[in-house]
Amino acid sequence: MENFYQEVEENISWLSAIGSDPTGGISRLLYDENWRIAQNGLKEKFEGIGLSTTFDEVGNLFGRLTGSKYPEETIMSGSHVDTVVNGGSLDGQFGIVAAYLAVKYLKETYGQPLRSLEVISMAEEEGSRFPYAFWGSKNIWGLAKRSDVENATDANGVPFVTAMRESGFDFRDEDNRFRNDIKAFVEIHIEQGNVLERIGKSVGVVNAIVGQKRYTITLSGEANHAGTTPMEYRRDAIYGYSKIVSQSIEKANAQGNPTVLTFGHVEVMPNTVNVVPGKVVFSMDCRHTDQGKLNEFTQILENDMKQIAEELGLAIDIDCWMDEKPVPMCEKIVKVLETSCQEQGLDYQLMHSGAGHDSQIFAQFVPTAMLFVPSIAGISHNPAEATETKDLVEGVKALVSSLYKLAYEE
Amino acid sequence: MENFYQEVEENISWLSAIGSDPTGGISRLLYDENWRIAQNGLKEKFEGIGLSTTFDEVGNLFGRLTGSKYPEETIMSGSHVDTVVNGGSLDGQFGIVAAYLAVKYLKETYGQPLRSLEVISMAEEEGSRFPYAFWGSKNIWGLAKRSDVENATDANGVPFVTAMRESGFDFRDEDNRFRNDIKAFVEIHIEQGNVLERIGKSVGVVNAIVGQKRYTITLSGEANHAGTTPMEYRRDAIYGYSKIVSQSIEKANAQGNPTVLTFGHVEVMPNTVNVVPGKVVFSMDCRHTDQGKLNEFTQILENDMKQIAEELGLAIDIDCWMDEKPVPMCEKIVKVLETSCQEQGLDYQLMHSGAGHDSQIFAQFVPTAMLFVPSIAGISHNPAEATETKDLVEGVKALVSSLYKLAYEE
Repeated sequence: MENFYQEVEENISWLSAIGSDPTGGISRLLYDENWRIAQNGLKEKFEGIGLSTTFDEVGNLFGRLTGSKYPEETIMSGSHVDTVVNGGSLDGQFGIVAAYLAVKYLKETYGQPLRSLEVISMAEEEGSRFPYAFWGSKNIWGLAKRSDVENATDANGVPFVTAMRESGFDFRDEDNRFRNDIKAFVEIHIEQGNVLERIGKSVGVVNAIVGQKRYTITLSGEANHAGTTPMEYRRDAIYGYSKIVSQSIEKANAQGNPTVLTFGHVEVMPNTVNVVPGKVVFSMDCRHTDQGKLNEFTQILENDMKQIAEELGLAIDIDCWMDEKPVPMCEKIVKVLETSCQEQGLDYQLMHSGAGHDSQIFAQFVPTAMLFVPSIAGISHNPAEATETKDLVEGVKALVSSLYKLAYEE
Repeated sequence: MENFYQEVEENISWLSAIGSDPTGGISRLLYDENWRIAQNGLKEKFEGIGLSTTFDEVGNLFGRLTGSKYPEETIMSGSHVDTVVNGGSLDGQFGIVAAYLAVKYLKETYGQPLRSLEVISMAEEEGSRFPYAFWGSKNIWGLAKRSDVENATDANGVPFVTAMRESGFDFRDEDNRFRNDIKAFVEIHIEQGNVLERIGKSVGVVNAIVGQKRYTITLSGEANHAGTTPMEYRRDAIYGYSKIVSQSIEKANAQGNPTVLTFGHVEVMPNTVNVVPGKVVFSMDCRHTDQGKLNEFTQILENDMKQIAEELGLAIDIDCWMDEKPVPMCEKIVKVLETSCQEQGLDYQLMHSGAGHDSQIFAQFVPTAMLFVPSIAGISHNPAEATETKDLVEGVKALVSSLYKLAYEE
């Protein structure tokens, strides 16, 4: 494994050049030219180490090393090949490179595994070109519907279907059976947060992906002249907003991990220095690894904000437009990853993922778990996205050991 | 005074038609065509009742009825002829119409006054066309400087100086002496707030115009991923904002009248549902009739917000970019207005003005006070700006009585 340092850097550099833009970022969007170059380049790489490759109908790429004893049992690893617009050099693609290097090392070192090993480069996860995310993994498990994207167009008006067909792909044939050979899926990904960095660990073993609820909340009061309207005659929407936000965040702070609560977006009307705001529309994003606790906490917040609105004479409309359930990872696979880290002498952290990943789709169907490597300053979806190479290497080593246990041991 | 009902309605209708737009609002901006038509129309009206008229250099219009015994002592009343863009039919122009009708009535009923009576239609107060307000009154008192407007242009790029000269006006000759004949200035105006309406009174006697301080405050924290950043690792700028706003408004509520505090404008970066806000820039507008108390209260708020920022690990920048002192009205003139209301059997309210008016410029040089009439729902600067005609008439009656006392009594 002494070559990993160089191999990780070389492969990340090679893949990052495909879709790189002058700002140092990468834009490689579903079915665009860079996406096609990357998938075909990966296909060659996979074949170069003796894997047999296939694309499925929608453009997910698989590189397979058939097992000797249990060829019908597949251990899969990989991630998504697409980026956000002006994204970084690790989100998604590091998971493909790491799986490729791990399988390459295992094959070179131990030869044919007992179970089949597959590297996957998934077509799409970010939802950056078209308004649809997890197109790759959702197609593998039959969760993507033709009607979801049939009328979708990108920012330039290019229809989803046109882009897909021009890339040589098409809708999944719904008569095809879904795969029942996958016995484990392991995805390695950057953390996209700052927990590992803060606690000084190189690897995280993910035991759950948070559920998230997103709200749009509208507070309606009365826009009034800032000078001529006494305080007691006001129905000030920003006052209601400020009470709701401060009180809710205090409660989230009191709850502590794994509760996170974010008021990221706000729009004020008329948003003028000398007018009391008559209307405030704002977002609330709440996440937790436990569905019951997530619902319980957001119910408390909803009750609080209704009470605040009533006290201040404001009308309130609460619209919960996203309610994604938490996804626990497979305990057995988590244990394999933990044991692998221990055997490699890695000081890992058992943790949850606060962001969504392809693993949350896989986990609904097959035993799944994830590894994290640290994100410097927690930055991602940004050209400044970075991880120390030594940490990337530790991640690859943990993955090697995990895949060995899953594919080479009885 | 039985004709006032009809005369008020007719004159407001006539003047409102000059600059009316299809939405029902009025746009009559400094030196534009409608402004010229209005000023010349008013000049004819004034001459029609036997007043001698003059324009000063910048376009303020005066209609004068010379006094018999003290012609060198002038009692002046009026307001501004310009409107905001898409404004209403009362702000400013009601004060001109009311002064015109009052002088007309006094002349018809009592003949020549002891002191001279003047109706003034001021050129500009709103700052709606060019970035300069109180152009009319500030020129009368030498507070407007050539350099203030020399490089100003309107939204269409028309230079201030060009617009002024094409209207037939020019900069004030600075060798001209300022007027020393004005013994009293009385302005009647709509309240632009909802106090009179709430307490059910037709007339307000204004004893002070508030001072106001305006701030731009910047809170800088760290933009982070809403899912992957635990609460304890955040430096959430919107959390700091919400604590500052809710706590400050609570303190303003506790202070009560005449303190008013408004957080009207806010800009959040990056303002995205799933990103913890890294930066918030917001306005604070605080007003009070007492300069000492205004400064004392804003100092408390500044200290509070610095402390909140420090507790949350946020950087804070506090920029106070407006600090206008409160302007007390002349006690003697206030007393005259009160006595006049009492004699007219009007149930008036002694009150302050939360908005700025030409009277705050006059009050620095000559005895000044104001009368208010109610604004329906407190609305102004809007086509929906309105006052019951009966209340307008009560205001004119109070003005008649006041001007009688000032100009006809020894």
